This record gives sequence, structure tokens and C-alpha cells, in this order.
Amino acid sequence: MKWGIIATWEMALEGVTKGFNGLKNGMSCDNAIEEAIKIVEDNPKYKSVGYGGLPNEDCEVELDAAFMNGDTLSIGAVAGIRNFKNPISIARQLSNERFNCFLVGFGAEKYALGKGFEERNMLTKESINIYEEKRRKVIEEEFNPYEGHDTVGMVSLDVEGKMCAGTSTSGLFMKRKGRVGDSPIPGSGFYVDSCIGGAVATGLGEDIMKGCISYEIVRLMGEGHSPSEAAEKAVKDLNDRLLKRQGKVGDISVVCMNNKGEWGAATNIEEFSFVIATNDLPPTVYLVSNKGGEYIERNKIYRY
Amino acid sequence: MKWGIIATWEMALEGVTKGFNGLKNGMSCDNAIEEAIKIVEDNPKYKSVGYGGLPNEDCEVELDAAFMNGDTLSIGAVAGIRNFKNPISIARQLSNERFNCFLVGFGAEKYALGKGFEERNMLTKESINIYEEKRRKVIEEEFNPYEGHDTVGMVSLDVEGKMCAGTSTSGLFMKRKGRVGDSPIPGSGFYVDSCIGGAVATGLGEDIMKGCISYEIVRLMGEGHSPSEAAEKAVKDLNDRLLKRQGKVGDISVVCMNNKGEWGAATNIEEFSFVIATNDLPPTVYLVSNKGGEYIERNKIYRY
Repeated sequence: MKWGIIATWEMALEGVTKGFNGLKNGMSCDNAIEEAIKIVEDNPKYKSVGYGGLPNEDCEVELDAAFMNGDTLSIGAVAGIRNFKNPISIARQLSNERFNCFLVGFGAEKYALGKGFEERNMLTKESINIYEEKRRKVIEEEFNPYEGHDTVGMVSLDVEGKMCAGTSTSGLFMKRKGRVGDSPIPGSGFYVDSCIGGAVATGLGEDIMKGCISYEIVRLMGEGHSPSEAAEKAVKDLNDRLLKRQGKVGDISVVCMNNKGEWGAATNIEEFSFVIATNDLPPTVYLVSNKGGEYIERNKIYRY
Repeated sequence: MKWGIIATWEMALEGVTKGFNGLKNGMSCDNAIEEAIKIVEDNPKYKSVGYGGLPNEDCEVELDAAFMNGDTLSIGAVAGIRNFKNPISIARQLSNERFNCFLVGFGAEKYALGKGFEERNMLTKESINIYEEKRRKVIEEEFNPYEGHDTVGMVSLDVEGKMCAGTSTSGLFMKRKGRVGDSPIPGSGFYVDSCIGGAVATGLGEDIMKGCISYEIVRLMGEGHSPSEAAEKAVKDLNDRLLKRQGKVGDISVVCMNNKGEWGAATNIEEFSFVIATNDLPPTVYLVSNKGGEYIERNKIYRY
């Protein structure tokens, strides 16, 4: 039986390794994704996800996360949530709700508190320092603050043939209070259907949501395209369309996997790293560039 | 030159009539949509949009709205915003922002305040009475509170060939605080591309967002389907897929228009009303049923 897990950015390596070990031992993809993303959320080294994530304009860490079940198509999502340790777990819990499955701001916090999710001050000393430095630059040098938006997104297939997807991010650094990117948006930041496959995106959410790129990749795989073809076509089409319509385009990177455990990735930037692990490939970091073509293996230090 | 405006639900009739008169006199579709939706938002008779909209579980009116420009694909959206008179105008303003174009909760309110949008207590005495009555029923009769979700959504084509789309809603009655439905979600509640056409949805947001139905309708029109065919196919496919996957499906209704001014609508409920006005059709209310087939004209009382 084929199984696997694919994730955006090299920072997902430890998480994917944990998910990989779980899947190998028969863990469901729901648990594998949640466990894997929690590891990224809990690591303060990663400045764009969870604990230690970079704050918004008011120096608050506002987090977005989503979870989708590829069997039932159920979705759970939170946006602009503060002071909870693992947004991905709250999103997964919300995916069990028939109504009110996407909650934002104080409402999301109220729900999480009511369900007993662990609270935590997500702002680190280091993040405050980075914020102060950037704020100075923005004021003194008219610096564009809106860089750094490395969402962790994952798609997984388990031995039962079930698929799911998850995302988690602190969003654009120095974003306006309450800003929502593509990560919690169904079809844009993520989409998965166990009958076809799943996809997740990372980059400038404001541009990604103009093309529903994750939905489009899954649809292309459903039409018979390989994951690599679907990812490349969707990124190229959206990139070209936005260039034509608005004269510029932000970063767009994607990873995807179909229900046969085949996978792909694509980007419109110079170098996008991603992590893949399947029943016949140990956790490996690859790079893909906007030139397309081969995925370049970065390392195999987490070989099992 | 062809032009027109189409909207969900009969409540949009006065608004569409104003938009129609504007478009006839060369108004841009952006202004036509904003003016038309403001009329629905301002009327306390309509319990699912704007002023007099039904409140959430905490008896607060939290509103969602979105605006999309079909030329640039720019999007502006707000969710869970309180105490502002016209959420559609805030969403339209946000569509001019390159970054931070989708704002929720207090962040959306902060932005609106900073931009000088008109504040208003959106809760009416009548809405409070309905809330109290329903709350009693929910407690005493284990009544399902989650009914009433009649989003106003509109798509318009102007004489210049530009298209845009807008939505506005108070969301599910008695929703959890911070709940977001499909209305502000790109691809789910709305989508428009001036090179093809646009679509908007209304119904149970939690189900609509599982299928990115507005994006899908526009895509189908782009493949050559007529608006009627695209609307019917997208609603049927999503309805059947959700029935199969989760054993039940909420209300799903859509309207759409292509860039030739042709239009369509579809629903999975018994009777869905919509309003259409074009260069050769005065504002008219039609009904469509889940049996498909003809659109039945309800009245032409707003004939010009």
C-alpha cells in the first residue's frame, strides 16, 4: 500500500519525519498531519509559524490554520487567533463541526478556550527584537515590511487510502491586525479529496487567493495530470494571469500529492524547498526553482 | 453594447433597479454593485444582510462582505465586522490594497475606522426580539438554530466590458462568534474574471466552501458552457458529491453572468429567487427550482 506526506519548506523536516514514522506504523493521515504541523508550530526557530512567529503591526502574534479531511471534505479553520499553542489542533477540531467550522479572532479564541486547548503566549523575545528592528527600518528607510510568509502546509495519504491536508502560519510579517492570507482559505491555501489528491500553497496570500490554486491543482490531477504537471501548470497559469492583469505577482509555491502517493511541487521563485517522505522514500528535502524541471535533493540527513 | 447585473434573492430588487439605472447611464460595474448592495444593507427589513441583520450567539451583528474586480482580479473582504453601516464599501476599499486585503474582526473595524467609514449600531429592536424568541426555542425545544443565511451576492457587467462581483451577509443566524461562511471567501462565495464572467453563491457556507463553487462556475463558463449550464452543473456536482461523502448537504444556490451579458442560476432547494436586469431586460425577479429547467418570472413591478 502506498502512503506518504509532503510539506512546504525545509523547516517541516522534523515534523515530516515524525509523520513518516507514524504513517509507517499505520497512523492515520489526520494524526500524522496534526503531529507533524505541531512540531513546526512549537519550534520558535521558525519565524513564520506558531510559537515565535513574527507579529503583526501591533506586535501581536495572530495565527491562521486549517485542516481538511479528504474523505468527507470537512474543513476546519481559524484566522487571527492569539495565545493558543497549536492552531492546527483547533482547526482539526473545528473540522468535526457541521456548522461554524471557520472561526476568526476573538470568536476562535472563545471556542478554543471552551474546548480546553492549551494557551500560550506565542510572542518570543527574539520576535520582539526582530519587530523593533523592522519597525525602525520601515519608518526610517521606507522599507516594504511585507516579506516573510512561509506557511507550513502538508498533504498526507495513509495506508487506508485516506488523505488530508493542513496549514499553519503567522501570516505576513507586520501585517495589519486581522489580516487573513490564503492559508485558512479553502481552495486557495489548501484542498484535498481522497478520491483524487491534495495540494497546499505558500507565498503571498493576497495573490494566491486570486486563483484558488489548491483547488485548481486537485482538479487538474483529477483530469489525469500527474502531480508535477498539475503543480507546474497551475503556478505558471496563475503567475502569467496575474502578471498580465496587475503587472506584478507575489511569491507562489505549492506542493501536492495524489491518492497513489505520487507527488509534485512548483514555484515562481528562485528556490523553494519542500519535504517529502513516502513508503519508498525516507524524509528528504528537495528544491525546485521557477525554471521547472528536476527537483534537486538537498540532503537525506533524516534517513531512517 | 451588452451590460447587466444579476443578484441572489428577491430582496435585491430595489438595489438591482438602482444598479440597472446606473449602468444604463454608463455607470461602472464597481459603482453599480456597491450602490446596489448598500441598498440591501441599509434596509432593516432584510434580516440576513447589514442593518437589522440577525445577530450571532452573543446577540452581536457580525457582518461579512467581499468585492472582486474582474479586470485586475483584486479582492477585498471583511469578516466578523461590527458596527459599520456598509461592509460592502469597506470590502471595495480593501480591494485597492496590494497587501492586507482580507481583514477580520477588530482588525477590520480598526481599518474601517481609520478610513472614516460610517459607523452604525446594526442591531435593531426587531432583531433582538427574533433573537430572544429563537433562543427560547433552542433551549426549550432543542431547535436547530442555524437557518436563515440569505447572502446578497451580485455580478455585474458594464458598458466598458468590465465585470465585478460583491457579497454581503450577516451569516448564519445564531452563529458562533467569529464564524465565517462562504460569502467573504474568494472562489467559494464569489469569483469574477472580466475575460470570462462571474458567479456568486448563497446557502450553507460550510458546505459551499467545500467545493469552491463560484470559481468552478467561472471556470466552466471559460470552457464554453453557457451560464445556465455552468450553474446547473456546478450545483448538481457539488450537491451529489457532498451527499455521497457526508450523507447530507446544505442549501446551495448560485447566480452567474458571462462577459456577453448572458446569465444563469441554479439551486438545490425548492425555490430560489433571483433578480436580473440587462440592457434588454428590465429588473425582473425569477424563480428557479432544484428540478432545473425554466426560470419562472415572478413579477415585473419594477419595469422601467
